[in-house]
Amino acid sequence: MHNISTTSSFIGFDQEYDTSPVVLVGIPFDGTTSFRPGTRFAPAVVRPDSYGLETYSPYLDLDMEDYNLCDLGDIELPFGNTTKALNTIYKTFAQIIKDGKRPLTIGGEHLVSLPIIEAFSKIYPDLCIIHFDAHTDLREDYMGESLSHASVIRRAWDILGDNRIFQFGIRSGTKVEFDWAKSHTYLQPFNLDSLEEIIIQLQNRPVYITIDLDVLDPSIFPGTGTPEPGGIDFNTLIFAIKQFTKLNHIVGADVVELSPHYDISGVSTATCCKVIREMSLLLSHKQ
Amino acid sequence: MHNISTTSSFIGFDQEYDTSPVVLVGIPFDGTTSFRPGTRFAPAVVRPDSYGLETYSPYLDLDMEDYNLCDLGDIELPFGNTTKALNTIYKTFAQIIKDGKRPLTIGGEHLVSLPIIEAFSKIYPDLCIIHFDAHTDLREDYMGESLSHASVIRRAWDILGDNRIFQFGIRSGTKVEFDWAKSHTYLQPFNLDSLEEIIIQLQNRPVYITIDLDVLDPSIFPGTGTPEPGGIDFNTLIFAIKQFTKLNHIVGADVVELSPHYDISGVSTATCCKVIREMSLLLSHKQ
Amino acid sequence: MHNISTTSSFIGFDQEYDTSPVVLVGIPFDGTTSFRPGTRFAPAVVRPDSYGLETYSPYLDLDMEDYNLCDLGDIELPFGNTTKALNTIYKTFAQIIKDGKRPLTIGGEHLVSLPIIEAFSKIYPDLCIIHFDAHTDLREDYMGESLSHASVIRRAWDILGDNRIFQFGIRSGTKVEFDWAKSHTYLQPFNLDSLEEIIIQLQNRPVYITIDLDVLDPSIFPGTGTPEPGGIDFNTLIFAIKQFTKLNHIVGADVVELSPHYDISGVSTATCCKVIREMSLLLSHKQ
Amino acid sequence: MHNISTTSSFIGFDQEYDTSPVVLVGIPFDGTTSFRPGTRFAPAVVRPDSYGLETYSPYLDLDMEDYNLCDLGDIELPFGNTTKALNTIYKTFAQIIKDGKRPLTIGGEHLVSLPIIEAFSKIYPDLCIIHFDAHTDLREDYMGESLSHASVIRRAWDILGDNRIFQFGIRSGTKVEFDWAKSHTYLQPFNLDSLEEIIIQLQNRPVYITIDLDVLDPSIFPGTGTPEPGGIDFNTLIFAIKQFTKLNHIVGADVVELSPHYDISGVSTATCCKVIREMSLLLSHKQ
Amino acid sequence: MHNISTTSSFIGFDQEYDTSPVVLVGIPFDGTTSFRPGTRFAPAVVRPDSYGLETYSPYLDLDMEDYNLCDLGDIELPFGNTTKALNTIYKTFAQIIKDGKRPLTIGGEHLVSLPIIEAFSKIYPDLCIIHFDAHTDLREDYMGESLSHASVIRRAWDILGDNRIFQFGIRSGTKVEFDWAKSHTYLQPFNLDSLEEIIIQLQNRPVYITIDLDVLDPSIFPGTGTPEPGGIDFNTLIFAIKQFTKLNHIVGADVVELSPHYDISGVSTATCCKVIREMSLLLSHKQ
Amino acid sequence: MHNISTTSSFIGFDQEYDTSPVVLVGIPFDGTTSFRPGTRFAPAVVRPDSYGLETYSPYLDLDMEDYNLCDLGDIELPFGNTTKALNTIYKTFAQIIKDGKRPLTIGGEHLVSLPIIEAFSKIYPDLCIIHFDAHTDLREDYMGESLSHASVIRRAWDILGDNRIFQFGIRSGTKVEFDWAKSHTYLQPFNLDSLEEIIIQLQNRPVYITIDLDVLDPSIFPGTGTPEPGGIDFNTLIFAIKQFTKLNHIVGADVVELSPHYDISGVSTATCCKVIREMSLLLSHKQ
Repeated sequence: MHNISTTSSFIGFDQEYDTSPVVLVGIPFDGTTSFRPGTRFAPAVVRPDSYGLETYSPYLDLDMEDYNLCDLGDIELPFGNTTKALNTIYKTFAQIIKDGKRPLTIGGEHLVSLPIIEAFSKIYPDLCIIHFDAHTDLREDYMGESLSHASVIRRAWDILGDNRIFQFGIRSGTKVEFDWAKSHTYLQPFNLDSLEEIIIQLQNRPVYITIDLDVLDPSIFPGTGTPEPGGIDFNTLIFAIKQFTKLNHIVGADVVELSPHYDISGVSTATCCKVIREMSLLLSHKQ
Repeated sequence: MHNISTTSSFIGFDQEYDTSPVVLVGIPFDGTTSFRPGTRFAPAVVRPDSYGLETYSPYLDLDMEDYNLCDLGDIELPFGNTTKALNTIYKTFAQIIKDGKRPLTIGGEHLVSLPIIEAFSKIYPDLCIIHFDAHTDLREDYMGESLSHASVIRRAWDILGDNRIFQFGIRSGTKVEFDWAKSHTYLQPFNLDSLEEIIIQLQNRPVYITIDLDVLDPSIFPGTGTPEPGGIDFNTLIFAIKQFTKLNHIVGADVVELSPHYDISGVSTATCCKVIREMSLLLSHKQ
Repeated sequence: MHNISTTSSFIGFDQEYDTSPVVLVGIPFDGTTSFRPGTRFAPAVVRPDSYGLETYSPYLDLDMEDYNLCDLGDIELPFGNTTKALNTIYKTFAQIIKDGKRPLTIGGEHLVSLPIIEAFSKIYPDLCIIHFDAHTDLREDYMGESLSHASVIRRAWDILGDNRIFQFGIRSGTKVEFDWAKSHTYLQPFNLDSLEEIIIQLQNRPVYITIDLDVLDPSIFPGTGTPEPGGIDFNTLIFAIKQFTKLNHIVGADVVELSPHYDISGVSTATCCKVIREMSLLLSHKQ
Repeated sequence: MHNISTTSSFIGFDQEYDTSPVVLVGIPFDGTTSFRPGTRFAPAVVRPDSYGLETYSPYLDLDMEDYNLCDLGDIELPFGNTTKALNTIYKTFAQIIKDGKRPLTIGGEHLVSLPIIEAFSKIYPDLCIIHFDAHTDLREDYMGESLSHASVIRRAWDILGDNRIFQFGIRSGTKVEFDWAKSHTYLQPFNLDSLEEIIIQLQNRPVYITIDLDVLDPSIFPGTGTPEPGGIDFNTLIFAIKQFTKLNHIVGADVVELSPHYDISGVSTATCCKVIREMSLLLSHKQ
Repeated sequence: MHNISTTSSFIGFDQEYDTSPVVLVGIPFDGTTSFRPGTRFAPAVVRPDSYGLETYSPYLDLDMEDYNLCDLGDIELPFGNTTKALNTIYKTFAQIIKDGKRPLTIGGEHLVSLPIIEAFSKIYPDLCIIHFDAHTDLREDYMGESLSHASVIRRAWDILGDNRIFQFGIRSGTKVEFDWAKSHTYLQPFNLDSLEEIIIQLQNRPVYITIDLDVLDPSIFPGTGTPEPGGIDFNTLIFAIKQFTKLNHIVGADVVELSPHYDISGVSTATCCKVIREMSLLLSHKQ
Repeated sequence: MHNISTTSSFIGFDQEYDTSPVVLVGIPFDGTTSFRPGTRFAPAVVRPDSYGLETYSPYLDLDMEDYNLCDLGDIELPFGNTTKALNTIYKTFAQIIKDGKRPLTIGGEHLVSLPIIEAFSKIYPDLCIIHFDAHTDLREDYMGESLSHASVIRRAWDILGDNRIFQFGIRSGTKVEFDWAKSHTYLQPFNLDSLEEIIIQLQNRPVYITIDLDVLDPSIFPGTGTPEPGGIDFNTLIFAIKQFTKLNHIVGADVVELSPHYDISGVSTATCCKVIREMSLLLSHKQ
């Protein structure tokens, strides 16, 4: 039928899986969120709203139309069973990685990064993580649970060990977490000031990038479960993404913690969409 | 990729065009809306929210899974040019009708019904219209424009003439419109009290059903441009749809005027979804 | 300048003060509201939103354009000084009454009715009050204050005495208030069932009508400070207004307690606008 | 310090545990919610908002101040581990029941009723359940999980067996669920029409009442995860509670599925508060 | 009537047309908006909300009370007919310009600037445009329409030609638009860095200023149809307006694209009001 | 009952009055608010939302758990009687000061600072005030009332006299107010640039700090009655609080003008909570 279309994919992600080196995956999971849930709706909301974007980025001077990008859709997950959900995510990404793709993930809560990192660590034993967040996410456990959005980076450390995790923009955590970080991760509090030097250090290593969007100030990103005033502004985040172009081996990335119902203006969703566009261009342009 | 799905269609509309006698079409148009625009977003919102529904209707005791239903997607329309938009809609529906389908349309504003009615009138010169609405929609023109949501039924009368249009639930209009209706349409004010007798009268005639959802009371349907307190309740509308099963020749139907941004609770969208489910079963079950 | 207009009046209220027997007055006061303030914004919101209405009422089969109606605007009031505010209101209405007008007031909180009733009581010592409300408003005092929205009808009784106040739709109050009402006012709990017989009784007496819109169910009127589920529906209220046409001497009326910010859908404001239209036609058509 | 108070309890629940036969318990759990989470916030929201209520009910002509009522506060639960959460709830209620209390619970999602019912079934092997809901909640499993809000009544049946569960107001479910109900529960679809006869039948049996507030129409209760138009109105629910006074042995009750963030008007919370008041008076007045 | 006022004008705009060199005009038009409509409500919302402002600007150290300012009200426009609407705007402004006024316009969508620019170009053939925006607005056409908010500056170029249009803050557009701009307009991407030098260049030329408020970051201005993170902050905009005082011949200005319903906090409207105050002082103080 | 808690206090304020040098007091008063009321709800909202915070501040490297902090609860106040309310506040704080406590107050509107300042001035005749605000608050009277949120600092000057009041961040007021400030207070417009030098000057004097949160930009703090774009950002406010650690004699502080209903995202409340945490640590750590 001419003149009719169903726009179910993210803008610019209009190619087939087989021919696309970069694939978008939604993970609508928020089962361990402690404060205000709702990140499970992020993938469903970003796709239609992405059509308010252009495919061209004036920041990177790159256009999504010049690359093969595939939107796989969302992973179907059970509710109320965290272990089973993480296992499903793990298997899906093991396959994607085996197929030689660079996955870009839309969460969901931050815990979804854990099985992705685990799947990558099997292929890249020397994997490093660049982590943008307002929160340390380094708890040994949270209210008795070891698998939680508040402990996701601690669990990633269980897999990767010391000197592999580089955290930026952190402005909230317990004293215990900040102290623990001193000997186990690199932690830049409040801002991204030292990002450039870390990027130089990681230039030729396999790097996975995990962006908890609450690293942004809640003025530009109110749509999240635990808003933390004092975050970085949008242009700082975009500039960081431009810096990432100096990394020679980015294996994948995720963008998590959009909770769209807390921002009825739609600004948070628009912000998330733009970060996804920039990250898709970053993952595409060079490799 | 197993475990992954992109749910871009309305729930239960999962078949191909060729094998489906009933097809769903979205028309995201609100170019002539006078008071509060936003109906263009209705199709994009009802599809993901439809997954809060079951495919089974306890009202009709029918299940969408027992029928072939196809969701065509949305018609792509230009903004700011009403004539061109109506022409595009007309051509699309002429083809759908020619293909022997019974189309179910999600608006958009009420004016989108006009080209559909026009297309049907070419095939069924004796077409009758059952019209549920809070407003008469019988203006000769509105602020100088003859093509407007406020004059859509008057324009349908230009095509069909007297004794073809049956209006129910009307509770707003100018005195001139109410007076004009006395000699040109059948108009039941405020409620659906006389619906049963009209249905008997139209039993074997070709009937098109147009439901402006603002016929419902704004308590259950606040998400619309011109809320009019004093409307019918949801069960009354469902009972009317059950009555429609006595009609032997329903050619198509539309459900218009959901403006989702005015109801952030999502209730209006849930209401619209349920009406679409019932109407799809009505169009499917018998013919 | 042709083609340009400033629509600062309520729809249909487009005549001068001198020639208008019915005048609209806004009183943006909510100084004693205990739970959720905001009724002070009602007058500013109903005027522009009234243009979503028609001037013709299909309920009363009357048109505002057939009557002389004047919108005086809002009374300017100090904040934080209840006594001074009430005094200003009193003086304004004493003048309006002296000029032979029938005032229709938009509140503001319910306490604004008190100085209006007081002003009328000087001219009509046998004044009766018909009072629609969810709440008794009969407290002797409220948190130590004798002038309060929760005691407005008790204060009116101080002026008028027994057998003058007729309350309908009441569904909230202390046990003390309900007990006190038994010997001092007529109180119909929950609904308007006995309205018709009271109207017959008051047919030739001077009657002031005060409608606290929270008498309506919060499903149709969520925009109020103290929502009380279980209220009457809109059509019941409209039917009551039709009943009022049997009263031969309505001296004035008010419509209070719209707090528009609590209902971002705009339905509460639309409901208030329609009640004002019907009340303006009631005050106009006969006398 | 005089003149200062911290009002952390529900209005009227101001007594100690030891002297109170009726106790209020909050369960902020929504870990298995499939569509829109947020019921975990209900207990935190109803307490401060309850101060918009009176302690006196004109419906039952009873006053909370005449009874000893204790607000225990909220149960602390882990996130992301359903089994552990249900176990914690079970133990807490086993103690409350052992102490001879009649607990009134505020959810949380509907699954929280399961461990309460289980705890009661140990003491009352002939326990019956009166269940108000929009949904059947009778799934064998939901997306592979047997413990879910969508299967809570099915799991209760696993404990209690046939002829013990009486469902009212049901208007959504799969065809399989409606068919299963025919031989295992009593199911009144759409409304409460047969409630009176069932109450007579259960008059002297131990009865637990579980009210999923989505049995109400979303016009008066939009603040819930899966709004289902076509529900009962508030006065019908209040009348049902009055009918419950004919039951001689109500052991406890719960009120679940308020999700306050979806209704920023506060009406849903006000509705929930009033239901809690009426239920607390029901549990108190006779036994 | 003393003590009563109808405040239908923007604060400080309280003089007559004949004596006011600066006049405020509202244009409630959003007929071509592609993403989220609603700018038509901006004029109706800014007037009452302007009373939250002072008339004195501490930025410019000027007070609106020291100047003659007239609020003309809103232009009445048909819906659904873009050509007719633009024609009406053109005629109105031709008259205002002929009367020697400096008009300050509140949109409405950005397309309303086109007929104003056209009217000025007849009097000032060497007219220059300073354009603040997030978007290039340079499309040859948009979905087949040449008259659209997305092509308004391209259409202005059709009238004015090369070297007349100076664009600032641009951060969104197609690659084609950015490329086209290189040879036809001056385009400063992302910020206002080069504004000062352009102002020197235009010091003695007739300049029209068009401010699409989405040049601001959506953190401070979420109430717009297409929010684009990464914009300038409010103080940067105010500083730019201070810079404008160096221009000797500003013929008029507009402030467009406020869509108030997308920001229920009212911050976007407050921001728009303050920009209007500063612009009215800029237009008044010198000439 | 184990596993159950009622969290009615602000996070970290879990000690008794007698052993706590720093006490938190809520004052839910907004009786004189001129534009948009609602600050009375702030204390009720910040307490439960504070549990989204950690007790540890990475800014000050201090933890609330290391100090004795007591949350007294809210002062009970009458509605509609400003004088009586201020008197009640005065008496309460006179007692708190007499007991040797350093009170930290959550408003309520800004007028609540007046009786606190008055109570302190009796003990410290040389008291100085550091005042953060968007508004001068220096009106002689406001709409005829001398006691008003718009004149609170002028009234404080009546008590304290010249050279005692230091105002920062001011960006709104009448010309008269700004002129008056030149000879009676220290007023730093727009920002906090000169704060450091003033702090040195006040190092050993008794200082009361009053923070009207609207000093913050409305991008991060939209939940206030009169949003004023152009404010300071959150990190600037935090840096100022760090500067305050150089003051040797801070007697108390308040944080006022959060109006939570205007920001349904919860960001304003989260911001207020974090300011309260930092201020409680400031008041605790040294003295």
